[in-house]
Amino acid sequence: MKEYIKHHEWNIVEEGFDPADNRVSESLFSLGNGRMGGRGNFEEKYSGDSLLGNYVAGVYYPDKTRVGWWKNGYPEYFAKVLNAANWLGIHVEVDGEELDLATAKVENFKRDLNMKEGYLQRTFEATLPSGKKVAVVSTRLLSIVDDEGGAIRYEVKAVNFSGNIKFSPFVDGDIENEDSNYDEKFWVEVAKENEAGQAILVSETLKTQFQVATGMKWNLTLNGAVQSTAIETENKEKFVGNSTTVAVSEGDVATIFKYICNISSENHDKGDLIAVAKDYLARVEAKGFDTMMEEQAAAWAKKWEFSDILIEGDVKAQQGIRFNIFNMNQTYTGEDARLNIGPKGFTGEKYGGVTYWDTEAYCVPFYLMTAEPEVVRNLLIYRYNHLERAIENAQKLGFTDGAALYPMVTMNGEECHNEWEITFEEIHRNGAIAFAIYNYIRHTGDDKYLADYGFEVLLGITRFWKQRVNWSVGYNKYVMLGVTGPNEFDNNVDNNWYTSYIAMWCMEYTTKAVEILKEKYSERYAELVAKTNFNEAEEVAKWAEIRDNMYLGYDEERNIFIQADGFFNKEQILVKDMDQSQLPIVHHWSWDRILRSNFIKQADVLQGIYLFEERFSVEEIKANYDFYEPRTVHESSLSPCIHSILAGKIGDQARAYEFYLRTSRLDLDDYNADTRDGLHITSMAGTWMAVVEGFAGKRVFDDGVLRLAPFIPAEWGAYTFNITHQGAMLAVRVSEGKVEITNTSDVAINVFVHDKEVAVPANGNVAI
Amino acid sequence: MKEYIKHHEWNIVEEGFDPADNRVSESLFSLGNGRMGGRGNFEEKYSGDSLLGNYVAGVYYPDKTRVGWWKNGYPEYFAKVLNAANWLGIHVEVDGEELDLATAKVENFKRDLNMKEGYLQRTFEATLPSGKKVAVVSTRLLSIVDDEGGAIRYEVKAVNFSGNIKFSPFVDGDIENEDSNYDEKFWVEVAKENEAGQAILVSETLKTQFQVATGMKWNLTLNGAVQSTAIETENKEKFVGNSTTVAVSEGDVATIFKYICNISSENHDKGDLIAVAKDYLARVEAKGFDTMMEEQAAAWAKKWEFSDILIEGDVKAQQGIRFNIFNMNQTYTGEDARLNIGPKGFTGEKYGGVTYWDTEAYCVPFYLMTAEPEVVRNLLIYRYNHLERAIENAQKLGFTDGAALYPMVTMNGEECHNEWEITFEEIHRNGAIAFAIYNYIRHTGDDKYLADYGFEVLLGITRFWKQRVNWSVGYNKYVMLGVTGPNEFDNNVDNNWYTSYIAMWCMEYTTKAVEILKEKYSERYAELVAKTNFNEAEEVAKWAEIRDNMYLGYDEERNIFIQADGFFNKEQILVKDMDQSQLPIVHHWSWDRILRSNFIKQADVLQGIYLFEERFSVEEIKANYDFYEPRTVHESSLSPCIHSILAGKIGDQARAYEFYLRTSRLDLDDYNADTRDGLHITSMAGTWMAVVEGFAGKRVFDDGVLRLAPFIPAEWGAYTFNITHQGAMLAVRVSEGKVEITNTSDVAINVFVHDKEVAVPANGNVAI
Repeated sequence: MKEYIKHHEWNIVEEGFDPADNRVSESLFSLGNGRMGGRGNFEEKYSGDSLLGNYVAGVYYPDKTRVGWWKNGYPEYFAKVLNAANWLGIHVEVDGEELDLATAKVENFKRDLNMKEGYLQRTFEATLPSGKKVAVVSTRLLSIVDDEGGAIRYEVKAVNFSGNIKFSPFVDGDIENEDSNYDEKFWVEVAKENEAGQAILVSETLKTQFQVATGMKWNLTLNGAVQSTAIETENKEKFVGNSTTVAVSEGDVATIFKYICNISSENHDKGDLIAVAKDYLARVEAKGFDTMMEEQAAAWAKKWEFSDILIEGDVKAQQGIRFNIFNMNQTYTGEDARLNIGPKGFTGEKYGGVTYWDTEAYCVPFYLMTAEPEVVRNLLIYRYNHLERAIENAQKLGFTDGAALYPMVTMNGEECHNEWEITFEEIHRNGAIAFAIYNYIRHTGDDKYLADYGFEVLLGITRFWKQRVNWSVGYNKYVMLGVTGPNEFDNNVDNNWYTSYIAMWCMEYTTKAVEILKEKYSERYAELVAKTNFNEAEEVAKWAEIRDNMYLGYDEERNIFIQADGFFNKEQILVKDMDQSQLPIVHHWSWDRILRSNFIKQADVLQGIYLFEERFSVEEIKANYDFYEPRTVHESSLSPCIHSILAGKIGDQARAYEFYLRTSRLDLDDYNADTRDGLHITSMAGTWMAVVEGFAGKRVFDDGVLRLAPFIPAEWGAYTFNITHQGAMLAVRVSEGKVEITNTSDVAINVFVHDKEVAVPANGNVAI
Repeated sequence: MKEYIKHHEWNIVEEGFDPADNRVSESLFSLGNGRMGGRGNFEEKYSGDSLLGNYVAGVYYPDKTRVGWWKNGYPEYFAKVLNAANWLGIHVEVDGEELDLATAKVENFKRDLNMKEGYLQRTFEATLPSGKKVAVVSTRLLSIVDDEGGAIRYEVKAVNFSGNIKFSPFVDGDIENEDSNYDEKFWVEVAKENEAGQAILVSETLKTQFQVATGMKWNLTLNGAVQSTAIETENKEKFVGNSTTVAVSEGDVATIFKYICNISSENHDKGDLIAVAKDYLARVEAKGFDTMMEEQAAAWAKKWEFSDILIEGDVKAQQGIRFNIFNMNQTYTGEDARLNIGPKGFTGEKYGGVTYWDTEAYCVPFYLMTAEPEVVRNLLIYRYNHLERAIENAQKLGFTDGAALYPMVTMNGEECHNEWEITFEEIHRNGAIAFAIYNYIRHTGDDKYLADYGFEVLLGITRFWKQRVNWSVGYNKYVMLGVTGPNEFDNNVDNNWYTSYIAMWCMEYTTKAVEILKEKYSERYAELVAKTNFNEAEEVAKWAEIRDNMYLGYDEERNIFIQADGFFNKEQILVKDMDQSQLPIVHHWSWDRILRSNFIKQADVLQGIYLFEERFSVEEIKANYDFYEPRTVHESSLSPCIHSILAGKIGDQARAYEFYLRTSRLDLDDYNADTRDGLHITSMAGTWMAVVEGFAGKRVFDDGVLRLAPFIPAEWGAYTFNITHQGAMLAVRVSEGKVEITNTSDVAINVFVHDKEVAVPANGNVAI
């Protein structure tokens, strides 16, 4: 754990430069705009330890799988979001001496991420070995207005000398992924143009042949006056650069304005990339850096209006929650159904930057409540577009007749992962994808989505479940064998309660979807029946028979659902009673020992109770929580938020707050000593859920009604969150004994607060 | 399946050259002498497809593990038997044209492995592109008399030309393993000497720093007369070669005699290797090729006397069984306790050439009955010498107090394997290692072995089992969770009957060992108690308590032992009722599908019944056999032999014979299309067991008495096997209705034949 980030309500601030923390800070100071993003690397040369990382959304490479022991069915490739051309670079020489913070004496170093307005500023003074000192202010944004690029203002003051400063802005496409399986580089150069003041490099990925034109346009001012110094161009393989030298006197400030873009063949014809890049660069340069900054601030204000949480009386918590919200919004904007949310977003390479069930289980709830419905709709359509490949994936595993198994990890719909116990057995992901459709509809009321896209996905998933169960002569029930539940600390188990339960729910909900389609979208339903060869009578009847005869483990004595067969054969030890030096067990214990222990990685039975809470009594929830939580080691960043929400539900407010704390500053304080690899983007959504669902008790059940049951942690004065529900936009302020709801939309809404119905008028407010 | 090998009682014969079969033939025509071995590669250049392979026993390389997803506890290295210097090479040029069977026209090609006398002969005629034709006879042996080397006689006849033949005999150490994880070469050159007629290359392995001096000494004759042609030497990195040219007239025969050796630092000081090599080469050259051949034949005759099985009336079966016996004896001679038996012996790289539980489960019974007791004793001592590392290995997995877990795969005692479901969970190997000690003692009567070595191993293993079980609040029994049984088609199961049973047996036998030690070796026992911190009272009592309260799955309805928890949740399908095109399932099904099927890879419950047969009634055996066998796909080469033996036991002679057939020509007819990778050495022992234990019903139980219950397959006229038991050497001939036993030793013995006690006098015989 590190605690060097200064506490501030809206800003993330690092003061002083410690090279040992640099990779952590590079992650924390990442910028993104949904289309691209990158780590907080330096513009000037840095010869110290650094993870250079720039990423363009949707541009991936299928790296050949490397595995010790091949299992039949493994995918041949692992799709990786690629480290793309470095567009930041502005090398600086002072009278021939290179500015490099690894060799200079650095003072007054500060990185400051302004989350309110969406930019990163870095200031420092550097004394070069010669004794010459410069003061630098770099200001950088990735535009969410002109979202194919961004800009840098890089100011250098000659503090104690007169002389020449040489600036070399460049684009470098000679990049590799640290996680390359075969130490290969994935990009080749396709074209480049390089002239004084503007250079464009077009790179293409091997195999997938994505092309990206990375361009720069720049100018130089001295004390605010535009300069026309001589410019040299430098061309190397996969590299375009300019350089110019300006004479400065002591106290002068020389400034480079560098406008950049990443124009992708995902959005433009390959033949047009250079032209589009030039247009973009001309447009934003004409607009100017200050205007870009103003527009960026305004656009971010709009995002905050939707999604901010204001915490009064706790700056540390305030900073933590905003950092999470800011990064969710930097990563995904919901405008492009081909994109999704990687576990590290644009902040690192780990996990390949691809799509996991995290999206549906954690990110969808966040965007449902903080963004226009289209955002989540696009996340759902992403899976709809992969349906055919999910069917092919299931076929590889022996399933037939349109059964679909969505991949554990994917970029383009194809499975990427290759641990059999996860790839083939962690099939509950299929349930999360179905649940997200239901979740979208109950929040938005948009049941036409079933007709347009949803039903086909539900049908493929439900057909999978139907084939995946089998009749047990031992139990005289349908059983689900050989699965890995959300608790990845148990593998190849039978009758994992969560998986079986969500499978049954899928059968139920798909049956309900059939009814909705027949009733409201009958014409489209007829088309879908034909398209999917759906035998309604037979298939629906079979699902009902399976649901009626499905085995779900239940322990009468303890009044709890049994996580999986054999759980009570395990030695029962509570986490608090074990040798604490053995935590986290994933670092201390061999895999077999973890598997045969009763320790749970993350919510499993409790994850199911969270999803279907209205189906269980508070006593049932409490019994399961009281049994499973003490056996849970929370070694997944996705675990504490669910526990926080359930603790809130059963009235254990202190523990709800305790779990919240474990997530909200996970990256800012580098809890798990892994922030250097990138931020835990998908678990950030869970932090937001812990406040809104855990503390404020927000729920939406089958009836689509918004319910709240707020309490306030003792440590806070008040908190206000923004939430959108079925067209209404509400700001909910919770303080001790008081709930105030302000409706900033034209849509009136009735909200249940602690089971009492409250009418919130359009553009009005109520206090309870 | 291929059937190109000609049927012959004593020889393996291939006629005609098909490059597509070359790798298969290279495996089949492998030679070995326990100290070294290699594949049936060609002496002359061959530019076609080939797996060059030469191996020196005990010389390994710890190749850094390559794995997709690392699990805590995985070993960092995988020990591999190294492909070593190629000593075969004799390149041949005819008037400047290279002899290469990939480019020449080949006629009358024949490979002939003489198993009776232990040599390989290859004959062919080759017409070079120029039209010049040579007839070649190459005869090769690896000496089991002078077992640090061997010799080649390479005869070339000028069939239709007069001209010059250039011979270039060489040693090439620039070798790589095909299975190298990082495409590295593992050998470096240390020294070389190269003079006319003799050259020695000393190579050293990276990391392990084994050194091997590979030497050659050669001479040339023309029509039988020694020649003194001019000799050139060629030195390259890791290469020493000579060459000489002889003028021939049409019809002349030029012959190279090449004597070779591999002198290993395992057996000599590194500083002496070259001198030892020179001594060896001088000695065998003085002896001469013909004498080496004669001595080889005599030594092999001795081996056959111990281990031959004579089958009358079935040449195909005869050839099959002898090929298996021959290869067992080529692979391991039992003289060196540092050596063991890799699954492929000296015939290929696959499985790294290292030690598996195959040794104890399959090879030990073979050598116990066909070789001097020292042979198996050395195999046991091999494990004794690894005890400390087995204790360290268990410590890595969280065990304490001297608990030992032997590795799944090893060379030097350290674990090499890295699939968690096998490495960490296929722990029944520990039981096989304990059982081998018991098996040795009941066959030899040498219970002093317990005092010398055995007890320490038994104690470490038993301590492991004691810690590996846990008390189940669900079952109110001790349980064994998270194991993989012999059936590797089920992973991470609870209460695998075989594993739990052998664990209990280990506790029982170690307790018995304590009694024996106290009674017969009390002084040594006191030493052992001190050495192992053995708390007899407490530990023995605990083992008894566990044995009394251990959970063993039993199905009352079917009267069978349950392979593992959950077996009856699986859909019950018989192999005969499944789509046969899906076999072998390991090639057609994804791993999850295999795991949740009821299909069994190899004997599991039945393996336990095989080991402890006297503890079960014939009815119990039959019930379990009838239940499990129809669910077994026999996708391990180790499976059919156990089924053959049990089928014999329950009187199903036809199936006993059918299973025997599946093993006896596994490699000769390339049943599994994988002989190209090397021979299935360890499963060859099972074939022998199928005859002696399956057909002849040979058993030795606790009382150490030799029992027979022979029948004869309908297809055979008679069969005779040789067996050694407690000092007696018996030849047992079984024909229809008759059993003849000839005792060729000075030890009289009583044998039970079909439960009737028969006295077999020393150097006498009886007929029953």
